[in-house]
Amino acid sequence: MTKDTSPVVNIKTMDMLGRPEVVTVDEARGMLLSQFNPVPPPKIEMPIDDCLGRVTAIDVLSPEDLPNFSRSTVDGFAVAASDTFGATEAIPAYLNIAAEVIMGKEPVFELRKGEVARIATGGMLPIGSDAVVMLEHTQAINEKIIEVLRPVAPGDNVIQAGEDAKKGDLILSKGHRIRPQDIGALAGLGITSIPVYEKPRVVIISTGDEVVPASSPIKTGEVRDINSYNLAGLITKRGGVPIRKGILPDRYDVIKAVLKQSLKEADIVTITGGSSVGARDLTAKIINDLGSPGVLFHGVSVKPGKPMIGGIVDGKAVFGLPGHPAAVTVCFELFIRPVLELLTGEKKKHYRHGNNTVKARLTKNLASSSGREEHIRVAIEERDGKLWARPILGKSGLITTLVKADGTIVIPLRKLGLDEGEEVEVILFD
Amino acid sequence: MTKDTSPVVNIKTMDMLGRPEVVTVDEARGMLLSQFNPVPPPKIEMPIDDCLGRVTAIDVLSPEDLPNFSRSTVDGFAVAASDTFGATEAIPAYLNIAAEVIMGKEPVFELRKGEVARIATGGMLPIGSDAVVMLEHTQAINEKIIEVLRPVAPGDNVIQAGEDAKKGDLILSKGHRIRPQDIGALAGLGITSIPVYEKPRVVIISTGDEVVPASSPIKTGEVRDINSYNLAGLITKRGGVPIRKGILPDRYDVIKAVLKQSLKEADIVTITGGSSVGARDLTAKIINDLGSPGVLFHGVSVKPGKPMIGGIVDGKAVFGLPGHPAAVTVCFELFIRPVLELLTGEKKKHYRHGNNTVKARLTKNLASSSGREEHIRVAIEERDGKLWARPILGKSGLITTLVKADGTIVIPLRKLGLDEGEEVEVILFD
Repeated sequence: MTKDTSPVVNIKTMDMLGRPEVVTVDEARGMLLSQFNPVPPPKIEMPIDDCLGRVTAIDVLSPEDLPNFSRSTVDGFAVAASDTFGATEAIPAYLNIAAEVIMGKEPVFELRKGEVARIATGGMLPIGSDAVVMLEHTQAINEKIIEVLRPVAPGDNVIQAGEDAKKGDLILSKGHRIRPQDIGALAGLGITSIPVYEKPRVVIISTGDEVVPASSPIKTGEVRDINSYNLAGLITKRGGVPIRKGILPDRYDVIKAVLKQSLKEADIVTITGGSSVGARDLTAKIINDLGSPGVLFHGVSVKPGKPMIGGIVDGKAVFGLPGHPAAVTVCFELFIRPVLELLTGEKKKHYRHGNNTVKARLTKNLASSSGREEHIRVAIEERDGKLWARPILGKSGLITTLVKADGTIVIPLRKLGLDEGEEVEVILFD
Repeated sequence: MTKDTSPVVNIKTMDMLGRPEVVTVDEARGMLLSQFNPVPPPKIEMPIDDCLGRVTAIDVLSPEDLPNFSRSTVDGFAVAASDTFGATEAIPAYLNIAAEVIMGKEPVFELRKGEVARIATGGMLPIGSDAVVMLEHTQAINEKIIEVLRPVAPGDNVIQAGEDAKKGDLILSKGHRIRPQDIGALAGLGITSIPVYEKPRVVIISTGDEVVPASSPIKTGEVRDINSYNLAGLITKRGGVPIRKGILPDRYDVIKAVLKQSLKEADIVTITGGSSVGARDLTAKIINDLGSPGVLFHGVSVKPGKPMIGGIVDGKAVFGLPGHPAAVTVCFELFIRPVLELLTGEKKKHYRHGNNTVKARLTKNLASSSGREEHIRVAIEERDGKLWARPILGKSGLITTLVKADGTIVIPLRKLGLDEGEEVEVILFD
């Protein structure tokens, strides 16, 4: 942090000390999302093998009929359905085996009235046939003649040409997150690459004169950079590409220069590390000095995460994250993730809240101050087949409290606490 | 498929025709998991940057105390707590500002009785102090003297040396799937790489004389390979590495040779493509001929997916998947995924069923034959803020029915159907 030379009394007027500028989570997120205007992400052509989890950048239409011929869905005999009408076990229809359909080949023969062709699942129906009788509904009289024991209707046991997709059909709409079956459909249509959106790039700037890289030996008084690693994982998990800019000293000119450059190369910029009032004010000042509108909120009524800074500089979202590891995770989910998800280009379906949750009972009473939304880390325990959520109550500065937790529960703004045995919804870490 | 020269009557005795060999899903999975003995996956040392989602191959212990010194969690003044006892707004404690703690440095001074040092969040407590008074609980008299308005207890606003982790503490246990915060903790401890398990390798063998690669132009009668792409995506999603072996002709010697080689290089082998009885029998025969115990089940009372083959050859799981795309997805989830997840080495927590689900109401009645477990593809629709599941009733041979679906619902073995308006649990595709 910078050397704190301001008189003590002045510091008491800051946001963190309860000024009305401290806003609720919903207010802060509202300011951010109402003023943030995401530009459509760049497109990139990608082989379908690499498309799992990517987002389509165009409407994908079928270039052809799928299948391009009528196929049998069973093993049996291709027939004219009319030749089987009225067939029963007592009075079967007697039909002649005239040919056999070879897999993968267009039949070179045509069936005449009273004739059938052997066909396997996936085989192409020959001209003169419009249905397939299943093998188990026939009986062989000899090598040349079968009895058909049940009638079929036209189209029975057949996938018609174009039944899966017709040329021009919408297969995947723009903004769709690609799943395994979607890749299968693209392959089936002969589409081997498609335009997808590039992943949003998120810069991570670490600051703090006491912070050293994870690979460094440390001296007494120093700590290794935890937050940028946690943050990189969170960004990756939610579809972004983290770009770590290393650890900067708490100096205005250094941080400002790197932030300015980062705004050019990334879609979102995050600054993590500064927990002191001086460091936070420095971050806020730099965000304000770099462009408009600058800082939108500085201080949010959430625990942990109160010192959170959110802003927009010339259309890019910029965040100043609190230094405590647990606060980084909470603030990422509350503020950065919604912006990041907008930038993926995915048209997310409403019913997908995107979190895995389980219901569990609380192992103990939890008090909470009214006036802030509290996110409590919990471990899940099974007792007699029932799930219990055990609060992990260490300080938010401890990374191991996050590691021991399986998820979080939220105590809303105006609720004073939760009771032992009360059912809570645990948002699972995944 | 192979040329089907067997007399029609003999084919009627096969599994698919209702012989008692057709087993339930639970029986089939039970046979598979009781006879499958997963070998521990190989370990690989991996930089923590690449560890998100990987599984730890060892118990990771803390190599040191974290932090390695007592740190302030607030901005304020490092004090001896005893100097503040009894302090109130009316009768404050007057203390002398003797020094300032520099971030990242070990203080070179000691505090004497009645002395405090300025300290910022993250700063190291100097000798002679055991707590920190928050800035906002003090008032400056001048540059040298403050009033402390509230007492602190020893340890207040301090993270003690070793409070986050003590040397030798278990940080991550073996078999743990690594999350963002876990990487943060490793970084904080100076651990920059750890042993993780290698991902299970799953071979995909496509067969079918009518099947051509996705990149091929197709002739009438041919279809492109859909299943191996769908399967590759499913394998990737569940933590495996798909290895596509291309499309083989339906010939005993060719498939057997590739399968034999695949058993050496992969942990699981899948064969997809053959929907005809002849192709399925060929697959089963090859599995039986390659080693013991061979085929465990051939035919399962599930729709789609009835022709599913599962077996074990010399300790490796081998699957013959039905040719219909919807059956591939259902059978993957029911039979291959549990084996694949065993092979990842993850010690999965019981409460994690691993599927995202939502509750919705059914838009129409659904009939189901008793005696088989039916998996119905559904699209989710929102009407007046309520979720509805609309069944997508196309043939299981159509890949687009899977693409249009948002998930599946299951009608259990002994249930005859579901009613319109009934609440169902939709297992979401993700």
